[in-house]
Amino acid sequence: MIVVADNLQVTNRIIEQALKDMDPVPIQDLVKQLEAAGAEAIDVNSGPLPRQGEEKMVFLVETIQQVSRLTLYLDTVNPRALAAGLRACRTAPVINGFSLEPAKLAWILPLAQEFNCDIIGYLLYPGGLVPAGANERLDVAVQLFQAYQEAGLDPEKLIIDPIVPPLMWQDGPAQAREVLTVIRLLPELLGFQVRTVAGLSNLTSGLGPSKKRLHLEEAYLAMLAAADLDMVLLNALHPRTISIARACQSITGSKIFSVVD
Amino acid sequence: MIVVADNLQVTNRIIEQALKDMDPVPIQDLVKQLEAAGAEAIDVNSGPLPRQGEEKMVFLVETIQQVSRLTLYLDTVNPRALAAGLRACRTAPVINGFSLEPAKLAWILPLAQEFNCDIIGYLLYPGGLVPAGANERLDVAVQLFQAYQEAGLDPEKLIIDPIVPPLMWQDGPAQAREVLTVIRLLPELLGFQVRTVAGLSNLTSGLGPSKKRLHLEEAYLAMLAAADLDMVLLNALHPRTISIARACQSITGSKIFSVVD
Repeated sequence: MIVVADNLQVTNRIIEQALKDMDPVPIQDLVKQLEAAGAEAIDVNSGPLPRQGEEKMVFLVETIQQVSRLTLYLDTVNPRALAAGLRACRTAPVINGFSLEPAKLAWILPLAQEFNCDIIGYLLYPGGLVPAGANERLDVAVQLFQAYQEAGLDPEKLIIDPIVPPLMWQDGPAQAREVLTVIRLLPELLGFQVRTVAGLSNLTSGLGPSKKRLHLEEAYLAMLAAADLDMVLLNALHPRTISIARACQSITGSKIFSVVD
Repeated sequence: MIVVADNLQVTNRIIEQALKDMDPVPIQDLVKQLEAAGAEAIDVNSGPLPRQGEEKMVFLVETIQQVSRLTLYLDTVNPRALAAGLRACRTAPVINGFSLEPAKLAWILPLAQEFNCDIIGYLLYPGGLVPAGANERLDVAVQLFQAYQEAGLDPEKLIIDPIVPPLMWQDGPAQAREVLTVIRLLPELLGFQVRTVAGLSNLTSGLGPSKKRLHLEEAYLAMLAAADLDMVLLNALHPRTISIARACQSITGSKIFSVVD
């Protein structure tokens, strides 16, 4: 399970301001912190970048690459900014991501083809709604994989995000368990070892900062690891969450870590 | 998932001395601490009690019952002491436990019949060795269930312990993953919702005290919970482990806990 930091996002005011001012320093400080904390990749969530999108995404990618060689997950719905960002990447990036939403199929999917890179597909309905249960998510997975294949893309470059539900939702805990089932069943359903990714912080969305929130994320992280999740997006500045991720890697054998040191 | 404290054991020197002196105070202090910490049941690991076994087990049970109403898991290989302890229990106890070892089948199993109580069966070979993989454990489970049924016991009173391996073992991580599979498969294999229990501290046996040890236990605890484990024996005096257990209960829905407080 690869740990992808979800901290570099435009909803963070420091990053928002740095992006506005084109100031590399706060961005590079954060990236260095994330790498030191144990992040193995970085999600670059720039938001939609309605103005100077290409310029800003290139600035982000180049700024990060000046201090880090970690894999970048480019996370924007703006296809022009995304294309510019992909072009600026020196090591193989990941597109985060597409869904059955017609605009994304039309504008994002071809970029995965053009840049021959990994791309995350979300198990969401075309209108953006989250499917309610395991069966509904698996139905969407079949449709998503079909659209993906029809675009002529390599199955091995697909990564599926089953969408972790907030526990706050009325059926949140039940859906969270169904997501574990979906992760387990996807390779059999699609007939190959499709990779999976999940956004951990979505689990506790709306709960506010608390110890309990972190415990819920830590517990669910281990459950995701046991379901053989390949990548997890999480707050890499929570040392305990990183420690639990390392412990999971020791147990699931996804990385060789000594269990004794 | 029910949290069973594994702290009350004769290998703890304070408990060893208290049992020798028949001094209830240190035992009651520990029991109160365990209950305050969140233990939902207590494993009473008296060891084999070679001398005055019946008297000492009755002393233990009565001493605990003076300060707590938690369910007691009576954990001794001494059948006479066990019988005396079961007789002294005011609330339904659990026998911990039996295996395919001939002496246990002959002496422990009939006590479950006589006292009509829950009993834990270990997935061990008759000589006490731990089966290597999931298939071997499932083979033993079938044999264990057969011996259990031949003794005329109620399937609903059986609880299976698949034996958590130490990660230190050469194939420890692989076995730890196989144990999760076994927990998942047992109900289907045996044809009813057989309950399962696991001893968490065995995972880190031999690793010595460290933060990493606790992280490994916490991660594996959540994996066990996701596999639908019914009861877990653990060190109830580690507040973080208890917090992770609570978080698991919130997610798996095995208990109604608010996710927000």
